[in-house]
Amino acid sequence: MNNLVISLLTDFGLKDAYVGILKGVIARFAPHALVIDICHEVPPQDIQRAGVLWASAVPHFPPGTVHVAVVDPGVGTERRILAFEARNCLFLAPDNGLIGYACERREIRKVVSVQRTEHFLQPLSGTFHGRDIFAPVAARLASGLPLEALGPRTKRYLHRSLPRPSLKTRRAKGSRITEARGEIVAVDRFGNAITNLQPLEGQKLLELRAGGFRWKKLSRAYGDVKKGRSVVLVESTGHLEIAVSHGRADVELGLKLGDPVAAVWVHHFSSPMG
Amino acid sequence: MNNLVISLLTDFGLKDAYVGILKGVIARFAPHALVIDICHEVPPQDIQRAGVLWASAVPHFPPGTVHVAVVDPGVGTERRILAFEARNCLFLAPDNGLIGYACERREIRKVVSVQRTEHFLQPLSGTFHGRDIFAPVAARLASGLPLEALGPRTKRYLHRSLPRPSLKTRRAKGSRITEARGEIVAVDRFGNAITNLQPLEGQKLLELRAGGFRWKKLSRAYGDVKKGRSVVLVESTGHLEIAVSHGRADVELGLKLGDPVAAVWVHHFSSPMG
Amino acid sequence: MNNLVISLLTDFGLKDAYVGILKGVIARFAPHALVIDICHEVPPQDIQRAGVLWASAVPHFPPGTVHVAVVDPGVGTERRILAFEARNCLFLAPDNGLIGYACERREIRKVVSVQRTEHFLQPLSGTFHGRDIFAPVAARLASGLPLEALGPRTKRYLHRSLPRPSLKTRRAKGSRITEARGEIVAVDRFGNAITNLQPLEGQKLLELRAGGFRWKKLSRAYGDVKKGRSVVLVESTGHLEIAVSHGRADVELGLKLGDPVAAVWVHHFSSPMG
Repeated sequence: MNNLVISLLTDFGLKDAYVGILKGVIARFAPHALVIDICHEVPPQDIQRAGVLWASAVPHFPPGTVHVAVVDPGVGTERRILAFEARNCLFLAPDNGLIGYACERREIRKVVSVQRTEHFLQPLSGTFHGRDIFAPVAARLASGLPLEALGPRTKRYLHRSLPRPSLKTRRAKGSRITEARGEIVAVDRFGNAITNLQPLEGQKLLELRAGGFRWKKLSRAYGDVKKGRSVVLVESTGHLEIAVSHGRADVELGLKLGDPVAAVWVHHFSSPMG
Repeated sequence: MNNLVISLLTDFGLKDAYVGILKGVIARFAPHALVIDICHEVPPQDIQRAGVLWASAVPHFPPGTVHVAVVDPGVGTERRILAFEARNCLFLAPDNGLIGYACERREIRKVVSVQRTEHFLQPLSGTFHGRDIFAPVAARLASGLPLEALGPRTKRYLHRSLPRPSLKTRRAKGSRITEARGEIVAVDRFGNAITNLQPLEGQKLLELRAGGFRWKKLSRAYGDVKKGRSVVLVESTGHLEIAVSHGRADVELGLKLGDPVAAVWVHHFSSPMG
Repeated sequence: MNNLVISLLTDFGLKDAYVGILKGVIARFAPHALVIDICHEVPPQDIQRAGVLWASAVPHFPPGTVHVAVVDPGVGTERRILAFEARNCLFLAPDNGLIGYACERREIRKVVSVQRTEHFLQPLSGTFHGRDIFAPVAARLASGLPLEALGPRTKRYLHRSLPRPSLKTRRAKGSRITEARGEIVAVDRFGNAITNLQPLEGQKLLELRAGGFRWKKLSRAYGDVKKGRSVVLVESTGHLEIAVSHGRADVELGLKLGDPVAAVWVHHFSSPMG
């Protein structure tokens, strides 16, 4: 009976005992749960960063996982805590927009406002709801408590998401050209710069521009170019990424979070002869 | 049978393999134990920091947990290793005062000096008792080995604790004023400055002073003030904390570990009429 | 049934969600596995550092552990992924020499080239084989899938290892003197400088030289000298280490990775009288 999975995503860091305390509380209320850390090094109160990480991780967990995110600048105020169902999993997060990064609106079901204090630790602190609310409620959800037991249904909630790229299309001889403008939404540990642009189905990359540089093709792997050369490829969540083989794109190309990126795609119409 | 819990608190950091090795050894001797990390980023050999973290975490773990702390500047010397019972849990730590932060003297029972080498890894190194003693002994305690099997009882041990605040009380018209002097004992990941002062029951905060600043009331949550404003509140272990809403009290107010803090409390006597 | 152990060693760091994603995938395919982190803070693509950590950790895990290392600069290229048996455990790693640090050639059995895509996630990315290949394959190995099911046997593979020290021996009156020359192969969190030199059986250390300093004896514990004094001892994997009691050898003695180290040993022949 070890397949109750609870995932944790927080901005608590690992220099304090906050994450360990969450796990201690979970062990009290759901001793058989398997707790998996998605990440605890989200910069303090950075909801977008948490969202990008959540979106990348959630699809890879087993059905039934209880996904808990505690990046919660409003802790202790009147901000609500939400629990809901989506993608065959349960989610628990503050009502600050974070849930929008991991789930589309149409996927979200049975949203409740978590209010029933009998499921919280007592006395309830004003500063550490991770310990007092999120951990015990997650443990109880993992143990089978229905969403309805947590509080009333709600239909209104904040739903933020990544900035969407703008697309402009024009016809050319025998082809259609699309220009997408977006930005760098993450820089990972390896210095790879991840954008919010995705490949367009059936279209070929003509050009990608960022930071004053320009690339003319999409590669498949970092090692497709020589050490020290830069490369554009589709990273593991399906977005365009700029990387340097055996190096760091952030340092060597000066790319950083929020920098604009433009991609030009071409679709060639097939001739009537096929 | 997954409810044998072992908590780990060390100064081993996460850049080396030391913590993984502890868990490998535990998995050999207690394959069903659930190992929970309290923290491994205690600054090297910083017993007070370890103590503050241990004190904050221990109360939230299930009964029966084996709490292991390895912050052990004396490794390999004649310093003893202690095991004991307290608060329905078991504890294992070097005899360097650390245990005093988590447990009051009156809570500590059945202290033994861990000496029976048949429970250690062999050959015993002079530099890594975490691997050779703490891990296998913790695993055996979690699996039911009685304390008595580890070595002889002892009555003497080091018991350090946080510096205690000084309190001075004076009468005023219709009231009693208490001034408490303490210090900042922790700065957490968010830059919050945590003191060793606690609220006085039935009394109202008149003033808190630290770093040349002064506050006139106790708030309940970070969000009770506007972004960028500072606030005093009772943090999650019951101590007074100075924070900046959506900011860092250490950076923005220049507060740091060891800085003196003074709190003035007032108790108003009720009039005979009630 | 919690004694399927999978150990993870990567250069993914803890600031992204990559490690959490690996664990999510493992939980899907091996819900009862116990996943233990050896280390994720290997500097990006640093195979030697990963090797040193792997070598120190592997011997302490239970028989049957599936040891997974993902330090993989060649991800997405034609480099192979290897799985094999050694030391009563299973191993999974890219074919970049890493396996040589943890296992001698003579210990390695049944090496297969991991190629059977039905055990991978689909679609297979070009950038994150940790998620798409290593995690699901490790989970399947832990669940009993035989090595043969992963791909064809192979006899050729890269097998790097630590630089070996050079040894020179000369006779002296009634004794044999050996001079070993090696280097510093790791500096740990505490600033301890770990060498690739080991004690020579039956011989006594006459002298150790490094960074312009010289030591005349081998100590047993950091605490054998006063605070702030330096010491040479045999560290927990059996190599000579230079440390400063309650301090940092890297900072205080200026020692760093790759610095040369020389040790002089003496063996005194026993006289015919015994």
